[in-house]
Amino acid sequence: MTRPSFSISLILPGWVDRLIDLDRPYRTDEEKMSLANALASENVKNATGGPFGAAIFDCTDHRLVAPGVNLVVPAFNPTAHAEVVAMGMAGTRLGSYDLGNEGALPTVLVSSVEPCAMCLGATPWSGVSRLIIGARDADARAIGFDEGDKPANWVESLNARGIEVTQDVLRDEAASVLKAYAAAGNEIYNSAPSADQRDE
Amino acid sequence: MTRPSFSISLILPGWVDRLIDLDRPYRTDEEKMSLANALASENVKNATGGPFGAAIFDCTDHRLVAPGVNLVVPAFNPTAHAEVVAMGMAGTRLGSYDLGNEGALPTVLVSSVEPCAMCLGATPWSGVSRLIIGARDADARAIGFDEGDKPANWVESLNARGIEVTQDVLRDEAASVLKAYAAAGNEIYNSAPSADQRDE
Repeated sequence: MTRPSFSISLILPGWVDRLIDLDRPYRTDEEKMSLANALASENVKNATGGPFGAAIFDCTDHRLVAPGVNLVVPAFNPTAHAEVVAMGMAGTRLGSYDLGNEGALPTVLVSSVEPCAMCLGATPWSGVSRLIIGARDADARAIGFDEGDKPANWVESLNARGIEVTQDVLRDEAASVLKAYAAAGNEIYNSAPSADQRDE
Repeated sequence: MTRPSFSISLILPGWVDRLIDLDRPYRTDEEKMSLANALASENVKNATGGPFGAAIFDCTDHRLVAPGVNLVVPAFNPTAHAEVVAMGMAGTRLGSYDLGNEGALPTVLVSSVEPCAMCLGATPWSGVSRLIIGARDADARAIGFDEGDKPANWVESLNARGIEVTQDVLRDEAASVLKAYAAAGNEIYNSAPSADQRDE
């Protein structure tokens, strides 16, 4: 057997560099979400991954710290959701696993779609102090994506950890990316669907 | 501002290659867990990350598909838990995000410590059909690690997705790695501790 090299390399598609602006402030929640939605939309148009975009911003100067897009299928990586990708990119850029620098650097995770169970679980580990969400869990499930089994009180649970949650920011725009992805016949990748999905 | 390069690179420490054996079968649950525990233990001894090891095996021939160790601090990545690392390594090696090949390749995730909320959320996305766990959630919490907010019925929830869960395999050995890590004064990294932890 050829000796495998055990390494993981995640690289953002080339079009991301042309979409993002590291010099401008993204001041409002809507401006921040517009970028996350554009990342999701361009990811579908360029066939570089699933219909999900995320970004981490510095809450003080409103600059982009790092973008993320879903890379599950092209990167052969079940964990490469947009939020996980954005967190890893931000940590690499900041040189720290703690994107909030122990609270000294307030950062926000912006996700075009409500994070799945994995990404919700990752949110406290990242050190962000806010989470802004576009489309709802129900919008993802409506086109067949599995969001996983989340604690019923996940908003309160994040709040208790000092993480503020804002929902439904440009929800329709985010949901329209999901619908366009499904309408084009793209892959709804689910390795282990829940029982009710398997029964369908 | 220097233009950052947005990429994530995760590489296993050099000692991992000397510890694993890609040619031998790891037949029993205990043999599989011994490797996960050794990965955790060596990660602490070599100061290459946190006290957590994981591995993915092919359930048919009992060969190792990919190892993983916790790389959160050295890799500047809050999501680089041992399980997430093992899943990414396995996907890269297999050339697919679905480590179970739609059920055709039964694979098992072996984790030296009960997966945190993020890693439990990732488990169904990986396509594994079994999860074998060493130390309990309580063992990790006992030394100050936060395991996150998991659904109360997470075992049943994984079972309902066709994922079998086996707990307490070489639990004491796995827990002793956690204790040794804490006793040596190593970092208990928690970006957003829960309220009761912050009150301590």
